[in-house]
Amino acid sequence: MADAGKAKDGSLVKEITNMDEDFAQWYTDVVKKADLADYSEIGGCIIFRPYGYAIWELIQKQMDQVFKDTGHENVYMPLMISESLLQKEKDHVAGFAPEVAWVTMGGHEKLPEKLCIRPTSETLFCSHYAKIIQSYRDLPKLYNQWCSVVRWEKTTRPFLRTREFLWQEGHTAHATAQEAQEETIRMLNVYADFCENVLAIPVIKGQKTESEKFAGAERTYTIESLMHDGQALQSGTSHNFGDGFAKAFGIQYTDASNKLQYVHQTSWGFTTRMIGGLIMVHGDNSGLVLPPMVAPVQVIIVPIASHKEGVLEKAREIKSSLSKTIRVKVDESDKKPGWKFSEHEMKGVPIRLEIGPKDIEKNQCVIVRRDTGEKVTLSLDSLETDLEKALKDIQSNLLEKARTHRDSRTCSATSLEEMGSILNAKPGFIKAMWCGSPECEDKVKEVTGASSRCIPFEQENISDVCVCCGKKAESMVFWGRAY
Amino acid sequence: MADAGKAKDGSLVKEITNMDEDFAQWYTDVVKKADLADYSEIGGCIIFRPYGYAIWELIQKQMDQVFKDTGHENVYMPLMISESLLQKEKDHVAGFAPEVAWVTMGGHEKLPEKLCIRPTSETLFCSHYAKIIQSYRDLPKLYNQWCSVVRWEKTTRPFLRTREFLWQEGHTAHATAQEAQEETIRMLNVYADFCENVLAIPVIKGQKTESEKFAGAERTYTIESLMHDGQALQSGTSHNFGDGFAKAFGIQYTDASNKLQYVHQTSWGFTTRMIGGLIMVHGDNSGLVLPPMVAPVQVIIVPIASHKEGVLEKAREIKSSLSKTIRVKVDESDKKPGWKFSEHEMKGVPIRLEIGPKDIEKNQCVIVRRDTGEKVTLSLDSLETDLEKALKDIQSNLLEKARTHRDSRTCSATSLEEMGSILNAKPGFIKAMWCGSPECEDKVKEVTGASSRCIPFEQENISDVCVCCGKKAESMVFWGRAY
Repeated sequence: MADAGKAKDGSLVKEITNMDEDFAQWYTDVVKKADLADYSEIGGCIIFRPYGYAIWELIQKQMDQVFKDTGHENVYMPLMISESLLQKEKDHVAGFAPEVAWVTMGGHEKLPEKLCIRPTSETLFCSHYAKIIQSYRDLPKLYNQWCSVVRWEKTTRPFLRTREFLWQEGHTAHATAQEAQEETIRMLNVYADFCENVLAIPVIKGQKTESEKFAGAERTYTIESLMHDGQALQSGTSHNFGDGFAKAFGIQYTDASNKLQYVHQTSWGFTTRMIGGLIMVHGDNSGLVLPPMVAPVQVIIVPIASHKEGVLEKAREIKSSLSKTIRVKVDESDKKPGWKFSEHEMKGVPIRLEIGPKDIEKNQCVIVRRDTGEKVTLSLDSLETDLEKALKDIQSNLLEKARTHRDSRTCSATSLEEMGSILNAKPGFIKAMWCGSPECEDKVKEVTGASSRCIPFEQENISDVCVCCGKKAESMVFWGRAY
Repeated sequence: MADAGKAKDGSLVKEITNMDEDFAQWYTDVVKKADLADYSEIGGCIIFRPYGYAIWELIQKQMDQVFKDTGHENVYMPLMISESLLQKEKDHVAGFAPEVAWVTMGGHEKLPEKLCIRPTSETLFCSHYAKIIQSYRDLPKLYNQWCSVVRWEKTTRPFLRTREFLWQEGHTAHATAQEAQEETIRMLNVYADFCENVLAIPVIKGQKTESEKFAGAERTYTIESLMHDGQALQSGTSHNFGDGFAKAFGIQYTDASNKLQYVHQTSWGFTTRMIGGLIMVHGDNSGLVLPPMVAPVQVIIVPIASHKEGVLEKAREIKSSLSKTIRVKVDESDKKPGWKFSEHEMKGVPIRLEIGPKDIEKNQCVIVRRDTGEKVTLSLDSLETDLEKALKDIQSNLLEKARTHRDSRTCSATSLEEMGSILNAKPGFIKAMWCGSPECEDKVKEVTGASSRCIPFEQENISDVCVCCGKKAESMVFWGRAY
């Protein structure tokens, strides 16, 4: 689509920065020009505009269905957590206290105890579970909530890192350690499948190292994806808490033989940062490119010579014939077609459908694919089937493209020097061996700027020794510079 | 259903207070025993448990569809508002500042300016509109958001008045005063239709008096419903702001003749307090009674003698044959049938379906309606159709019952004395004439404990003079003691 804006009005396209020149600026331009989000008066908090929020609604709807199909129930916990409750699990409070927003006044009065706005809700779920779980019959508890959380970040960027963001947080309690572990991996797989099948973003599944795991978790698992510029994005995490929180909060049940036991818990989260991921994985120099499954508008109908008799009527007729199965709109604005083309390319609409007087005569229309720029003439008789097929094709093509790009940016390295030169020449994932010591992990980061992304489930033997210290390697790790 | 628990195990039923003896305690009992909500560690904030939240999800899903069908788009605005932004419209800040929660610290640092947690989001929408509205082509803006808000209330009660609650807030901007007025009334009608058709709660539509209107509004409209105990509940409000906020925030557009104009705005909100309304309008001494349209489980299948061969299988088979059109569950727990009956009555499940070995032999099942206690034997051949019919019937019966009750509790009065004695003997709505002065409005409240609910659209002439001062009446008003 490099020439998408050239032959046309082009003003919109001219306004965005070339992604190969300044990727960060390109990203910001797309966020603004595609009407995804706006800055708010409070630094680091964004306004989700209708188009950006509609993408989140599509993500939410489809993911929520998977949660329900896997037996999870939605709840809603309070927005605020008292300081004393937050402090109940010591690793957890150490991880989150430095970045929470504190409410200290209600109306004109100072509160007896300060309350934080939830940065995550483990403590709330735990204190509730302690009340409602008594017997093995009450288990498992498979709860989820959709809400916003606040973390007082210093550096922010729309979607990717904001002081307030939207997410879902699953919190479950199980009778045994094994069940908790199964749930942790089940939900990681739900996220991975969702990224690949819905967002068309391929991911690496693996475990976080000790120093990268969640505050209070025994084990943290992650899915990691690669952006167009070669930087990594942590795209979803799933944590196994063991019985650590259960002991801190006293969550016990009597088992079938009437003995008191602690529950084993998990939590897992997926956030609006993945809208940022969508932009950075699929976008191009004409703007956003949306996978059909999360595109608020899948087909935009642009009437050509719409002042001529019958054109607008035909466009509307096509729209209503398609709208049962496809998210479709007619652009009836009084802008010129060229301007409309650019605008919908900027917004990443998967298919543009052009219909003018000559097309109507021939009982046909022209469609243009956003992902390839390919232009095809279609008969109106089999339009619905053909469009559905094209949308499916775009969906799988985007995943394929992203996978090819990711793979072309994944290298192996056996020395810090090699890691550094790869990352500078062609940033991406680097597979390298690791001895397991946090000192080596820190040193890799210090020298190369790449952090450990995960210890992937699919291990390979790149060499027998640690990329850093040269001692015996324990595992292969994916490294990368990350958002 | 007065005998619902008698012949059975009954333990659950015994635990709730009789509604005629102590309505407030009955309400709290239902909230807890029907697993709708739990108290949280923070006073005045509740935990929406799965069953309570599922009701809200059904409300949200159906109402959101109406919003989309009427051209509204969802957005998400930040949770926090700076003190200076809140202060931009003077009536608005005066109304809300005394009851907001203030964030004064981010991490370990004191914030340069304190931020309130949104009590409502007019100021956020206005500052956004000031940025994105330039021309008449940008109008109307029809935005909505689903979120939670915080108001630091002194006295709280689950769902009815909580420090944090969930709601939707619509915020629209229009070119003309007339369009804004049309939108205000359109959305009031959306709420009224929703209450009647979905929640089975009949409402009175009308305008709030000057002293009861929303902080910053020109005109506030309301729908008012009546609870079982004769107290009124404000059930949804719609506000016309005129151009007051537009002037405070500088929201201007150039019209078709290139002149600068101020926009005219509306806002309207509907909250989780209506779950409280559902409880108090339809509930009885066996617990909750849910209208099928918002019942998370519409039909509960209770297998009888479920240890016998084929019973559980048949129950599951019926479930899967129904589950495309009906929200249906099988209670497979190891509790006794009598206990299950009480439990699902407590939770207000509209229909219980019993199936045992003898029923299976005869290719039939027994259904019991929650609203009437009526027991009918149905053939399994036409089950889906018959159940759908029964659910429709329950839905309309509940509305009819509520309307009959409301009407039987609506009286006219021509003196304060008469108002007082009616309210003490048989609390409900009282229709009485009013001169329009705030002094008389205050005095009625002081003497009778009833506040003005609304000046109804459907006016009647009860008498020619004000119920309080005896001077010439301006309008008929609905009065009532309210939650």
